[in-house]
Amino acid sequence: MGVVIPLEENKNKQASVKPLVDLTKSGMERVNQLILSKAGSDVQMIPEVANHLISSGGKRLRPMLTLATASMFGYEGEGHIKLATSVEFMHTATLLHDDVVDESDLRRGKSTARMIWGNQASVLVGDFLLGQAFKMMVEVGSLDALDVLATSAAVIAEGEVLQLSVAKNMETTEDDYLSVIRAKTAALFAAAAEVGPIIANTDRATRNALKSYGMNLGLAFQLVDDVLDYGGKAVELGKNVGDDFREGKITLPVILAYRRGTAEEREFWRSAIEKGDSSDEQLEIALSLIAKYGALNDTTLRAKHYGTIARDALAPLPNSEWKNALLDVIDFCISRVN
Amino acid sequence: MGVVIPLEENKNKQASVKPLVDLTKSGMERVNQLILSKAGSDVQMIPEVANHLISSGGKRLRPMLTLATASMFGYEGEGHIKLATSVEFMHTATLLHDDVVDESDLRRGKSTARMIWGNQASVLVGDFLLGQAFKMMVEVGSLDALDVLATSAAVIAEGEVLQLSVAKNMETTEDDYLSVIRAKTAALFAAAAEVGPIIANTDRATRNALKSYGMNLGLAFQLVDDVLDYGGKAVELGKNVGDDFREGKITLPVILAYRRGTAEEREFWRSAIEKGDSSDEQLEIALSLIAKYGALNDTTLRAKHYGTIARDALAPLPNSEWKNALLDVIDFCISRVN
Repeated sequence: MGVVIPLEENKNKQASVKPLVDLTKSGMERVNQLILSKAGSDVQMIPEVANHLISSGGKRLRPMLTLATASMFGYEGEGHIKLATSVEFMHTATLLHDDVVDESDLRRGKSTARMIWGNQASVLVGDFLLGQAFKMMVEVGSLDALDVLATSAAVIAEGEVLQLSVAKNMETTEDDYLSVIRAKTAALFAAAAEVGPIIANTDRATRNALKSYGMNLGLAFQLVDDVLDYGGKAVELGKNVGDDFREGKITLPVILAYRRGTAEEREFWRSAIEKGDSSDEQLEIALSLIAKYGALNDTTLRAKHYGTIARDALAPLPNSEWKNALLDVIDFCISRVN
Repeated sequence: MGVVIPLEENKNKQASVKPLVDLTKSGMERVNQLILSKAGSDVQMIPEVANHLISSGGKRLRPMLTLATASMFGYEGEGHIKLATSVEFMHTATLLHDDVVDESDLRRGKSTARMIWGNQASVLVGDFLLGQAFKMMVEVGSLDALDVLATSAAVIAEGEVLQLSVAKNMETTEDDYLSVIRAKTAALFAAAAEVGPIIANTDRATRNALKSYGMNLGLAFQLVDDVLDYGGKAVELGKNVGDDFREGKITLPVILAYRRGTAEEREFWRSAIEKGDSSDEQLEIALSLIAKYGALNDTTLRAKHYGTIARDALAPLPNSEWKNALLDVIDFCISRVN
């Protein structure tokens, strides 16, 4: 007899990162080994701090992108393992520095490194991992890949500083916010996906296609994260609903609810975000205002918009299991909100 | 009639960084322009923070070393300007992160960036400058130079973490301390002096000679800094006598005074450094113990030892005004204590 399921919903339900995980399995085993070996040091605190974060169960989406985008163009060398590890180290270094900057206590449900070893160790071990990342890139020897990754390192830091300067400013526009997450999050996704075709020696159009895929996937990924913060389950997220609110972070759901709100509601947001009045009662109000203006739904629609751009970026490429796996990742990222 | 001046003293009196400054003058003007342009960003806080430190009057010894060690081997390209700027950015990034790690209020007599813009901006602008440094290195296109500088970035961070783990531990040996300053300070001097001959395409022996020169000059430089902290004038240093003591920093003068001291004196050091009892009265006692055991004099002797190694490293090279300028820098560094 069967049940009729709308196609869109059905697709989302099935969307999975599993095809990408399966295709990159043997490569990722080598990446994981390299991560452990390159996070090693005679200075005992370095592997302790690094492994705390490395073993805390991130999805390692970024290095998988690098492996996939190299292999899908027939790359058969060893360089993609080192570049993928470099990408993950750049990400880990950013997280270590972020936790210091945000004064975070928890990440993925575990105490942050700075809570255990202090801000000092988090800053310095981040620097160490960044140095190790650059060493590995240099070993691979592709100046084009180095250029892309070094540029993304500068852009990420620039985005973080930009975020500081928009922080707690409720007049932040959606465009301002997009500039922040484009630099902070999407730039590394873009770089991770671009260095694959670079070392596989593809043409410029293919490089750009993968770069665009990564950039827009990263935007969608971050926007969905923003939604989950106001609507996800703590168990899944490894953080609590409303963490962004309590930290006074301005994300798109807040920007939309603020801009669509009445004068009185805008005053509420300024008091909560700018002045830091973010008790549980205030969070309840925030959630009701976000719901009132459909801000989570519309943030999800924005994420889908970027997901579509990512999908179209890959459209000209020949079909392959690699391409399908990359497309599935887009749907997977977005389906996390369902 | 004349006065007889012992040769050694006379030499020290005349030792100057001026020949190096004069020889690298036009190059340094371009480095300074590049520093300003690459510290620029649409994100307003970045040039503000960066220029605060950049304009605070450091000697720029490191980039001068890169310019000199390229030019002395006939290098006529443009890459040395970018590499010298990269070296200075790596140094500036380290200072920004150091001030956060050390919780310093003053550097070179000015408020530290973290006191004005906060720890967050210091961490992130440091990351930005590091990213810009790597971008410039990539533009130069020498994988060997990239390797040397990326390795030094990882080594510097490793040294900083090592310093954390020996911090406030009075059982730190002279060897432990040397490992720290070799990594923290000398590695960048070594890299700055090695990338010159690399882009000038010299042979391996010449590269190694300049690397050894830089490494040992860096050790001498740091040891003299340590002496100055207990014996220098605040005006000259841009910091106050005893800053290291007040911050509980273990430097060679302290290590020597501690190890040579009586049980009671060692107890004093433990209380001052490990437990942070570092009032002005305690500083007076520390200074008297350092004097009692000749610790400043012997630290200076150690600095001279490394200075001699730096000098011998250059010995096989043909005489030139460049070589003489580099030798003068060794004497200049050491003569600062007189």
